[in-house]
Amino acid sequence: MDDNARDIDDERLAAAIADAVRAIPSRWFRKPLAVDAKADRSPVTEADRAIEQIIRARLSEARPEDGVLGEEFGAAMEGRSRVWVVDPIDGTGSFITGSPLFGTLIGLLDGGVPVLGLIDMPLLGERWSARRGAGTTLNGAPCRVSGCGRLADAALGSTSPLKFEGAAEAAFRQVAAAARITRFGGDCYTYGLLAAGHLDAILEVGLEPYDYLPLVPVIEEAGGVITDWRGAPLGFASDGRVLAAATEALHAEIMEMLET
Amino acid sequence: MDDNARDIDDERLAAAIADAVRAIPSRWFRKPLAVDAKADRSPVTEADRAIEQIIRARLSEARPEDGVLGEEFGAAMEGRSRVWVVDPIDGTGSFITGSPLFGTLIGLLDGGVPVLGLIDMPLLGERWSARRGAGTTLNGAPCRVSGCGRLADAALGSTSPLKFEGAAEAAFRQVAAAARITRFGGDCYTYGLLAAGHLDAILEVGLEPYDYLPLVPVIEEAGGVITDWRGAPLGFASDGRVLAAATEALHAEIMEMLET
Repeated sequence: MDDNARDIDDERLAAAIADAVRAIPSRWFRKPLAVDAKADRSPVTEADRAIEQIIRARLSEARPEDGVLGEEFGAAMEGRSRVWVVDPIDGTGSFITGSPLFGTLIGLLDGGVPVLGLIDMPLLGERWSARRGAGTTLNGAPCRVSGCGRLADAALGSTSPLKFEGAAEAAFRQVAAAARITRFGGDCYTYGLLAAGHLDAILEVGLEPYDYLPLVPVIEEAGGVITDWRGAPLGFASDGRVLAAATEALHAEIMEMLET
Repeated sequence: MDDNARDIDDERLAAAIADAVRAIPSRWFRKPLAVDAKADRSPVTEADRAIEQIIRARLSEARPEDGVLGEEFGAAMEGRSRVWVVDPIDGTGSFITGSPLFGTLIGLLDGGVPVLGLIDMPLLGERWSARRGAGTTLNGAPCRVSGCGRLADAALGSTSPLKFEGAAEAAFRQVAAAARITRFGGDCYTYGLLAAGHLDAILEVGLEPYDYLPLVPVIEEAGGVITDWRGAPLGFASDGRVLAAATEALHAEIMEMLET
């Protein structure tokens, strides 16, 4: 199989797996959990685990030679050049407060480089999918970032301003004050909206590799830019600070403000 | 017609009007607007106006003796004891950034007291409806606030932290730091989630009468408390600062922190 055929096959596999788990969150969403003595159980943890178990089982059956990194069950990736990255429920805060803005993330890295990314919003019925060189689709139709090149014209997204501290908070406030509009909440959905041209930039801190790695192809294949706050490509060892933008110009303008 | 029969009739009218306008936002949502020299046109303004015009026409036909206050076309309420309050698209920021968390609000005040409230989320297919003494429903099924009585256990919602300034910002930060979790975004949807027991408290500033008056019956009839920051009932002349909570105890705990 050549690289392209393999990529297409991987994207189909990710879609089939996302289909298989799409109905699972509804079992726990907005429903009280049966009382249990163990304090660490929560509806979202139950849903997280149920989804990740199925995804891991499907991957280990279809791609036994690949590694996997997931939120709930850790990493099995030593010595593997291809590693799948899974966040069963991204947007835990939305899930536990009854908002449908949570999603399932499936990504694939090859030699440390994100080559495939999928964001599935089970309750909204929206899915972004991207593979290297093939563009990003929203529910099967190609989508693209906006052409916004200036922060003064930009709609900025960030999940929560309360996550920023110290110098990062000061920098975020400066960027938000200069943006046309700033929107909070949304987690992975925010990146889908950027890839579809509805938001123009995203600034975040405190993300984990399973949060941000599946998003990279979704943004890049839609024509956008996504890096850490210093402009370096995102990888397993990034520090969890993410800057995404519709254009190089907008990315550069914001990055300059982060350095001051 | 006695009071109760009149109330039922009013609630049915509000539902019929919400049905009539539900498909309108999709005409403009996520769609670029045809270029126009007038800079003040925007997709959300177009949708806002189209919706409010239909609502006003239906109200003036069915309730010619009542007053109306709307976001786009102002007030026609002098000397009227019954006044309908309309926000055609609450959550403008969501609408213009491609997020489905916007809603249509229809409320009715009688002698200055909110007696009927409806929140319709057209893209999410969710509707909260409440009339005095009859409880709150979500898509026709009765719903109720949580029993949360302590801020340390509470999920707090607020549309944007950037709206707070000075002492209000300090107070908000203190409340958010003491809450179990704080969620941003959502506008009117946040109040629906509180009425259905998924959020426990909401703290906001800068709301307009057409934003907050339709929400009052939705919260109160679900068993919650909603006032201004000093604990006074919300009316046309309130200052736009809103505190809503699932219980009297939680409301009192937060209000005490707002005074410091």
